[in-house]
Order: sequence, then C-alpha cells, then structure tokens
Amino acid sequence: MSGRIYNFSSGPAVLPEAVLRRAQAAIWDLDGSGIGVLEHSHRGKAFMAVLERTEARLREVGRIPDSHAVLFLQGGASTQFFQVPMNFLGGGTADYCHTGVWSQKAIAEAGRYGTIHVACSSESTRFDHIPGPEATRWSAAPAYVHFTSNNTIFGTQWRQEPAVPAGADLVCDASSDIFSKPIDVSRYAMIYAGAQKNLGPAGVTLVIARKDFLERGSRELPTMLQYRTHVGEHSMFNTPPTFGIYVIGEVTAWIAEQGGLAPMAELNQAKAKVLYDFLDGSAFYRGTARADSRSLMNVTFRCRDEALEPALVAQATARGLDGLKGHRSVGGMRASIYNAFPMAGMHALVDFLHEFERAHAGAR
Amino acid sequence: MSGRIYNFSSGPAVLPEAVLRRAQAAIWDLDGSGIGVLEHSHRGKAFMAVLERTEARLREVGRIPDSHAVLFLQGGASTQFFQVPMNFLGGGTADYCHTGVWSQKAIAEAGRYGTIHVACSSESTRFDHIPGPEATRWSAAPAYVHFTSNNTIFGTQWRQEPAVPAGADLVCDASSDIFSKPIDVSRYAMIYAGAQKNLGPAGVTLVIARKDFLERGSRELPTMLQYRTHVGEHSMFNTPPTFGIYVIGEVTAWIAEQGGLAPMAELNQAKAKVLYDFLDGSAFYRGTARADSRSLMNVTFRCRDEALEPALVAQATARGLDGLKGHRSVGGMRASIYNAFPMAGMHALVDFLHEFERAHAGAR
Repeated sequence: MSGRIYNFSSGPAVLPEAVLRRAQAAIWDLDGSGIGVLEHSHRGKAFMAVLERTEARLREVGRIPDSHAVLFLQGGASTQFFQVPMNFLGGGTADYCHTGVWSQKAIAEAGRYGTIHVACSSESTRFDHIPGPEATRWSAAPAYVHFTSNNTIFGTQWRQEPAVPAGADLVCDASSDIFSKPIDVSRYAMIYAGAQKNLGPAGVTLVIARKDFLERGSRELPTMLQYRTHVGEHSMFNTPPTFGIYVIGEVTAWIAEQGGLAPMAELNQAKAKVLYDFLDGSAFYRGTARADSRSLMNVTFRCRDEALEPALVAQATARGLDGLKGHRSVGGMRASIYNAFPMAGMHALVDFLHEFERAHAGAR
Repeated sequence: MSGRIYNFSSGPAVLPEAVLRRAQAAIWDLDGSGIGVLEHSHRGKAFMAVLERTEARLREVGRIPDSHAVLFLQGGASTQFFQVPMNFLGGGTADYCHTGVWSQKAIAEAGRYGTIHVACSSESTRFDHIPGPEATRWSAAPAYVHFTSNNTIFGTQWRQEPAVPAGADLVCDASSDIFSKPIDVSRYAMIYAGAQKNLGPAGVTLVIARKDFLERGSRELPTMLQYRTHVGEHSMFNTPPTFGIYVIGEVTAWIAEQGGLAPMAELNQAKAKVLYDFLDGSAFYRGTARADSRSLMNVTFRCRDEALEPALVAQATARGLDGLKGHRSVGGMRASIYNAFPMAGMHALVDFLHEFERAHAGAR
C-alpha cells in the first residue's frame, strides 16, 4: 500500500492508485509537452486532446449515444439542484422521488420555479428503502421526473430506474453511483453527477443529457446557466476545471482497463456482499437499509449497542480503516466502497469488525 | 528545467515548480495521512486543516482584514459576472469601467438585472489604455462600481483603483493580477478572481468581500447563489474544489517564501521591464498598449510587419517558448508572465526576439 491506508470516505473518495501515479507525472509534464496539466492553456492543443479523449472514453465506457451531450460543468450537484428547475420547470409541475437528504435539497431548490409533486417518499420510515411502483403516484404531465439513484447517507440505491409514464423526461442525480454499473443512457433526459465519488476529484460536474432536452431550457437566464451555452462551446465557454477533466479521463481509462462497467458492477457486488453477508450473520451489528434497497456504494450499519460505536470508529481509524463514521445526521457507521475501493479493504474491515465483536460481545 | 519549457500561457498558466513538487507528493499522501489530497473527505480533519491554513495564508499575504470574508467558489469569473448583479443590482444602476472583452461580458450579464452605466471606456481606441479620471463620469448613486484590474487580451492594467465617489462599493474582477502586487483590500467591497493565473489551477474562484456587503445580497435566489450561504458555511455548504484550494494554499505559501507581495511586485516589474525595454528599443516590434497603461502580467506586441508573426510564433514554440500567440480576437503576440514565470524566461524570450529580428530585418 506504500504508506496508504483504507479510505472509506463517502466523497471525495478513494481513487485508483494507477490514476494517482499518472496524475503525479502529468502535474510536472503532460504527455511530454514540457508543461504540467495544471498549467496548460485550456485552448491549447495538449488540453484539447485531454478534453477530446476524456469525452471519447466516457462515451465508450458509458455507451453514451450521439443523442446525448457530455458536459463538464462546475458547482456540483448542489448547483444542478437549482439549474435543472431554473431551465426546465418554468412554473409547471415536476415529479420528485424523495429518498433522502439529497432529494430533499433538490426539492427545496426546485420549489422556487414551480410546483413540486412528491411522487413517492420513504421519509416515514427514515429513508430505509427505495419506494416501489405500488407506492408511487405520478402527476398528470410532469415537466420532468427527478430521482437520486444512490443515497449516500441512508445507504439505499435504486435497483433500476423508476417506471415513469411514457414520454416523461427522466432526470437523475447519479453523483454517488455513476459508472458503478452499466446504465442505459437512452432512458434518461439528463444524468448529472459531482465527480468526487466514482469519477475524479471534487470540482467537476459531469452532465450527460439529451441535446433536444437541453435545447428546451429557458433563454431568460445568465449565459452560464443555460445548458445550451456549454453544448455549443463543448464545455469551453469559459475556462473549464481542466485538472478534474484530466483525472476523469484517467479514471475512465482505468474502468476500461478493468473491462468496463459490467465487470465493475460484478466487483462492486462482490465487495458489498462481503460486508452485508457478515452483517447479516451477526447478532452484534445490524444493517440500517432494507435488504431490497441496499446500496452497493455506501453500506450503513450500527452496533446493536450503539454506545460502542465511538470506540469502534476510533479503533478502526487507528488500524488504518479511515472514514467509517456515519453522516452526522444519522450516526452509526458507513463504509463507502466506490469503484476504486479494493476488495482487500473489505476483508480487512470484516476482520476488524469480527475482532471488535469478539472483544465486546464476550465481555458481557 | 527537468524537461519543462517556458510557458507564456495566459491562463491556466505556469505555477511555481516547488508547488508542483508538493502537489505531486500530496496526491499520493496528504501531510502523512495515508490518503491523497484528491481523496480526502472535505469534512475530515486533514482537509479542514488545508482549508484553514489556506485562508490564514491568504489573509496574511494579502493583509485581508476581518471585515472581509474569504470564499472559495466555483464557476470562474464568468459566474461572478452574473452572480454579482443578481445579488446586488436589483433593478438599480451599477457603474462599469469598460476596458476590454472581460468587462464587456460582465456588462452584458449584468444588464439582465438593472441599468448599466458605462462610467468610462477605452473601446474607441481598441482598448489600448485605462481611462483616467478626466474621462470618467459616475452615475448619481451606483449600487456598486465594477472594474477589471488587468486586461489579458489588450495587455492593459490599472495602476491604482478607479477614484470612485465616497461611499461607493468597489467590485473588482482581479482574475489576472491578484496577488501580483500589494493590494489595499479595505478599499474594496468585493474582489473576485478565477484562480488559474496567479493562484492555482482552474476551477476555484477566490472571493474576498466585505461581510456586510455580502449580507445585503438578495434573498430571493437559489441557496448556492447567495454569497451569505458560503460565508456562513465557510465555503463548505457543498463539496468545495478541494484540490484547487490545496494548491492555492501552497502557492500562497510560496509567495510568502519570496517575501510577500511587495517583493513579488518588484520581481514582476523587473520581468516586464526586460521585455518592454527591448520592444521600446526596437524598430522591428511594437507594443500595443499605451505606455501609461501597460500590463505587467500580459505583454502584448506585434511585428511591424505583421505577416511575419505566424513564423515568429512557430519558431518560438520550436525553441521551447510556448503560448506566445495573441488572443484570437486581436492577433499578434502576447507574453503572459504571471508571478511564477521565471526571470530566466524573459531573457530567453528577448534573446529569441533579437535573433528573429536580425534574421528577418537583415534579409530585406
């Protein structure tokens, strides 16, 4: 591990070590240009090559059709929370699936621009599951339908897209599980994702969206907030976050080297299974999400005796298992195990949890 | 130079090599934490320490008083072009000093939110100078006064702030000369700067602004677009661009190691003088900016025989003098020589220009 520890951070999060090595070299000299990646003009040949290859890799790995634009924006999902309704709501009604803190924030920002119809919600059971079709009521003609594909705080994840009415435009906040499994992009009007979990560093937002959908956005907005601006200028209307785009390109190349999204999904399944199987077999711990809704990216769990949790987190940290403390709004533990998190770290965690259980269950 | 060449890019631009070496190490392991700077949770201790020390260094080097907040935002100056008037104009009148392409863009975006009074302009002479007080007419009670401290495309720079009426709130786009010389922050309601010239990589916007001014902003805006949100949350309302903040901290430490902003200004003066003196003594070349308005950051010049310019740029590039082509809207040459550009590169450029002149002036 060369002095590195296991990083269970929910994001920014662990990146492939091969990518870090490439980034280190590129910071001094990008592609033999004699100039580092941080220092290249965004309009020069060297960075233009980075931008083009990054988009090409994303399109190949994600099977993104030509109908959809690929944009590199800034401001994270928090900016998309208002930019989407600002562009597409215009006083109408949009349907939101409410599955946690992030959908709550998206709903709150959208409310400034029209009527928000909460089509389904798991709030009454503390967001422990993803609502099914039987618990979902769509409005008559929503401007779009919005859902959050993975919920980092409550450890839940949609198994498949919500079954929207025919013709509805589906918008997804995929910040925390994008490219963790194959995705049928053609089903979506828009997918947006902050890069800092599965794609790269904080500070880039990947937007994949149908060009004709983006073209429908309001023209009564600042130039920067109209998506069409960035489609027309290939994300180069202003200086883009060049280094973040470079890293996304290298992460996407790394995914391709692993065989693409299908093998990535198998690995993620296998990694999560190690921990969920352990938790299911334990009387000392318990998972917090309903089994049918469990996230493969963020495994949330508790000690049955919650008073033991601070000691658990502290001992784990001392053992080089970092970032296991749950979100401050829910407590408990959370193991975030995005694409780049290694299988060896799963076994190290389970070994530690087993040991902690023996030490504390036996003592009473 | 270890394989690196002279980078005259107008931004993203050359960074101190000592900073690049530190960034390379931090990408693998930040401060001995066992986790790289790209991968650390923004809410963890390691990154919080980075955020705190970066702000502390900025405050010390820039002598930023407690009256002013220091924010790390996203979206570049292009986002500030609309965010400033969206917050502070509210149907009123703001005064803009019009000195080039960037002020033009700022004026265009602001026009959506009120009346723009162009207090002064150098447009009639192709933006070759900074208008003086005698050519400036302020409106009666502007909501704020906006100016662009350095104009990258036309190679002009304000020697000092415009002499605004007493009580007027001065807002400055300092993207291309921030921290190139001492600045009296107390004179400003707001200074904003994209980081990618003197401060760090593209993707972070530094905002230094009076807290009481920011508090005056509209409350009828998306949460992300209200400056007060970011003041209250210390730039941590959402995931900030963590790596960019780290690099800004290292660049600011490097400035401090050089002795601070006064020695930095002396070095910048000396660097620019090498090139301007050469141009002034040549009958072959000519500077494009009026002598009293010349930029110390971007030296714009032409061959008197403009047909020679493509050959000049090509030969310079082949000699390891990269990025000398002028902005596509004006042509000619531009040497961008921000803080981190080394004096040795100035002499290398002048030697080359002298040689090119001999080869081509002698031939005719």
